[in-house]
Amino acid sequence: MGNFKGHALPGSFFLLFGLWWSVKYPLKYACRKNKNACYLGSRAGFQRLEFVEGIIKAVFALIGMVAEQFVPDGPHLKLYNYEEKHWDHLMNWQHATMYLFYGISGLVDIVAHGTNALPVAMDRMMLSLAVFIEGFLFCYHLHGRAMLDVHVHQLLLFAIFGAAVCIFLEVFFRGSIVLEMLRTSLCILQGSWFWQIGFVLYPPNGSPEWNQMDHTNMMFLTMCYCWHYAFAFLILAVNYTIVSW
Amino acid sequence: MGNFKGHALPGSFFLLFGLWWSVKYPLKYACRKNKNACYLGSRAGFQRLEFVEGIIKAVFALIGMVAEQFVPDGPHLKLYNYEEKHWDHLMNWQHATMYLFYGISGLVDIVAHGTNALPVAMDRMMLSLAVFIEGFLFCYHLHGRAMLDVHVHQLLLFAIFGAAVCIFLEVFFRGSIVLEMLRTSLCILQGSWFWQIGFVLYPPNGSPEWNQMDHTNMMFLTMCYCWHYAFAFLILAVNYTIVSW
Amino acid sequence: MGNFKGHALPGSFFLLFGLWWSVKYPLKYACRKNKNACYLGSRAGFQRLEFVEGIIKAVFALIGMVAEQFVPDGPHLKLYNYEEKHWDHLMNWQHATMYLFYGISGLVDIVAHGTNALPVAMDRMMLSLAVFIEGFLFCYHLHGRAMLDVHVHQLLLFAIFGAAVCIFLEVFFRGSIVLEMLRTSLCILQGSWFWQIGFVLYPPNGSPEWNQMDHTNMMFLTMCYCWHYAFAFLILAVNYTIVSW
Amino acid sequence: MGNFKGHALPGSFFLLFGLWWSVKYPLKYACRKNKNACYLGSRAGFQRLEFVEGIIKAVFALIGMVAEQFVPDGPHLKLYNYEEKHWDHLMNWQHATMYLFYGISGLVDIVAHGTNALPVAMDRMMLSLAVFIEGFLFCYHLHGRAMLDVHVHQLLLFAIFGAAVCIFLEVFFRGSIVLEMLRTSLCILQGSWFWQIGFVLYPPNGSPEWNQMDHTNMMFLTMCYCWHYAFAFLILAVNYTIVSW
Repeated sequence: MGNFKGHALPGSFFLLFGLWWSVKYPLKYACRKNKNACYLGSRAGFQRLEFVEGIIKAVFALIGMVAEQFVPDGPHLKLYNYEEKHWDHLMNWQHATMYLFYGISGLVDIVAHGTNALPVAMDRMMLSLAVFIEGFLFCYHLHGRAMLDVHVHQLLLFAIFGAAVCIFLEVFFRGSIVLEMLRTSLCILQGSWFWQIGFVLYPPNGSPEWNQMDHTNMMFLTMCYCWHYAFAFLILAVNYTIVSW
Repeated sequence: MGNFKGHALPGSFFLLFGLWWSVKYPLKYACRKNKNACYLGSRAGFQRLEFVEGIIKAVFALIGMVAEQFVPDGPHLKLYNYEEKHWDHLMNWQHATMYLFYGISGLVDIVAHGTNALPVAMDRMMLSLAVFIEGFLFCYHLHGRAMLDVHVHQLLLFAIFGAAVCIFLEVFFRGSIVLEMLRTSLCILQGSWFWQIGFVLYPPNGSPEWNQMDHTNMMFLTMCYCWHYAFAFLILAVNYTIVSW
Repeated sequence: MGNFKGHALPGSFFLLFGLWWSVKYPLKYACRKNKNACYLGSRAGFQRLEFVEGIIKAVFALIGMVAEQFVPDGPHLKLYNYEEKHWDHLMNWQHATMYLFYGISGLVDIVAHGTNALPVAMDRMMLSLAVFIEGFLFCYHLHGRAMLDVHVHQLLLFAIFGAAVCIFLEVFFRGSIVLEMLRTSLCILQGSWFWQIGFVLYPPNGSPEWNQMDHTNMMFLTMCYCWHYAFAFLILAVNYTIVSW
Repeated sequence: MGNFKGHALPGSFFLLFGLWWSVKYPLKYACRKNKNACYLGSRAGFQRLEFVEGIIKAVFALIGMVAEQFVPDGPHLKLYNYEEKHWDHLMNWQHATMYLFYGISGLVDIVAHGTNALPVAMDRMMLSLAVFIEGFLFCYHLHGRAMLDVHVHQLLLFAIFGAAVCIFLEVFFRGSIVLEMLRTSLCILQGSWFWQIGFVLYPPNGSPEWNQMDHTNMMFLTMCYCWHYAFAFLILAVNYTIVSW
């Protein structure tokens, strides 16, 4: 993960999900409002969508876990280096753990929407936990890094924990369009901010590095974070308008 | 913003909105209680009011953003000084970002109350976010200032984050007079405290400066903050009584 | 306040209110359960009780404010000592401010339960604010004191902020016996802990002072705090049993 | 408690309760869904179960308290050593206090489900408080220990306070299967983590001690904590499947 691609990849993943949700939830809302005008989506149709979403999430998480383990400089399932007596590739193991919980969340989606066995609200609870665990591992991930590096990751934590709380609220206020939009916006924000982190910490194609100790850089990035969020709402608004039409 | 006027202006803005709300919400409550006695405000009338409020918010925010950019010592849309290799007028850009989110909140008000396209609860969610972003930017605004300066701004954060939480609760408990009154009181508090900050940090007409390092000054200002809040409730009570009559 | 009596007095006040609530709420609950068995309390009767409670709160707060101002070594309404250029008796002013908000809460009780003008939920909101302000002023009250002194006051803050949150929840879940019992227990805890603080910091009749720097003292007091809370529940249980009979 | 057994014992207790809940709540949910298929559990049956649970909790807590007092190196009810002028066996007293609150919670369960005198929601409130008090005492328990020791106990606090919040939410959303599952998972996590702490801090049968100052150990344990949680969900899923069949 310690390179540009390692931040762009999860960023793309979150962006993809965010963009998809920014189409799905307005569509669902529009369908609920005028029931006859909407010929493609019914209640059962949307449930099938959630089922497919669960499969995609589980598959992505599986690919992520395997990739973290078997990349050339990965741990290949080896956790402890007995010869040199230290833990092996802890970073990769941590990322695999994050993916693991997204995988569990995907599995719960599949079972909850594919069968009748589980209560449907479980899907939100597991997703909330998966997001929380991501943030939780990030918190203990930043020890001993440079100031700017810590700061950009801390900003990410706002989006992560915000999303975790928002999804947990959805357990109780399921189907609230406001919470769904909030979650979507935070997901897009997380995705685009991952890209931004990549550009800041590992500037591609030879542009000069950022000064890690300059306090104005920190202030600019805090502001930049807000612009990303405004941009997320712009995307949401555009998609909402298109879908409504 | 680094002068008396820069704090008095947003203060007046918040005071104006707070005073207006302290008339509007009691009126709305009184109308809901005895429906025939109230001849000027109907449900549609109050919706039109929220529409107008949205326009005013959006216009004010636009003026604010333009002003922050094109004041004589403003950035004039220049973000980075390439010659001297540093960020340009970050303060002004940060304030413009704050206004931007209030502008978005105003736009959402207009669309949510002017058309049927958006769910009405979105207006509270965007306002809550706008207030939260204001507090969020303030948090990273105070680096390296003197103790008293930091303290008076921290006190402001209580009013800001309190209002953000209160407005977010209104998404779920819309129309609760208690939350509306709480929001109004916090808005008046924010407005009057902006004025107080102006008086403390940039004493007008030649009064002596406050000692930034005196701990009793901090204790006095904490208490003074509570008095401002009691004063906000006094205004609320007076307006409530007048409106009820 | 910097003596034994200064802590015993507010402690007694909170204990009194806590004990009274520990009788009132079980009674109310019992009356709601079996309506014909209960001949002394009706819905209107309990409303009148809340009205009287408001008057008592307002009167106590007024007495408190006057006492803080006009005790022999009090400020006598003088806030700033112009000769020596420092704030005068800030402690007394802070305590008076705390009482002020309890006074406002009492006034709101009187208006909300005596007339029809105010929504009844306002009484809980103002009480929650009054308790919050008390905790808020306590937070900025402890600067530069000894470790044990800070610790016993911090423990108090748990009871204060816990009560503030609990009362705020009552705005939305009004009449929930569980929240009312929780509030009562926290109120008794606060009262008895005030007494404990008095005994620890200003040991009466010549017993030796506590070692302010001993860490085991801190651990004992934390545990002692829990015993106070268990004791509060004991009182609650006894009163509940008596009332049920 | 400062040995392997002292952590394995409470761990087993929490595991036991967690495992029992992971059978009980799916069963209750299944019974509620298809009422005729379920011949063993009725509404009254489940209430009797909660009554029995209360008795077990109270008995366990009593045994725990007595054991903490009368183990060979325990305080034997002596709180203060007057000869050497220091507190005696504070650790044991703290643990006894923790058990005390679980005991109170058990008593409330017995009264709330055995008689009609108490509102049923009180059982959740007292359990939430008991868990909160456990976390609260843990917080002030860790002063002056080594980094790794503090870290593994801090991780425990997440499970404890998470459970306290979750149970408090159950006061308002009683019978929500999602919250019950969340509580169960956190209870299993707490139990298995107690065992893990025992293995880390007091390695049994002569395995080498962990390096308390190695930062990679901390990172591994954070990740390990997440695996424990994933494992808790695995147990939950297995039991849920068996019960559903």
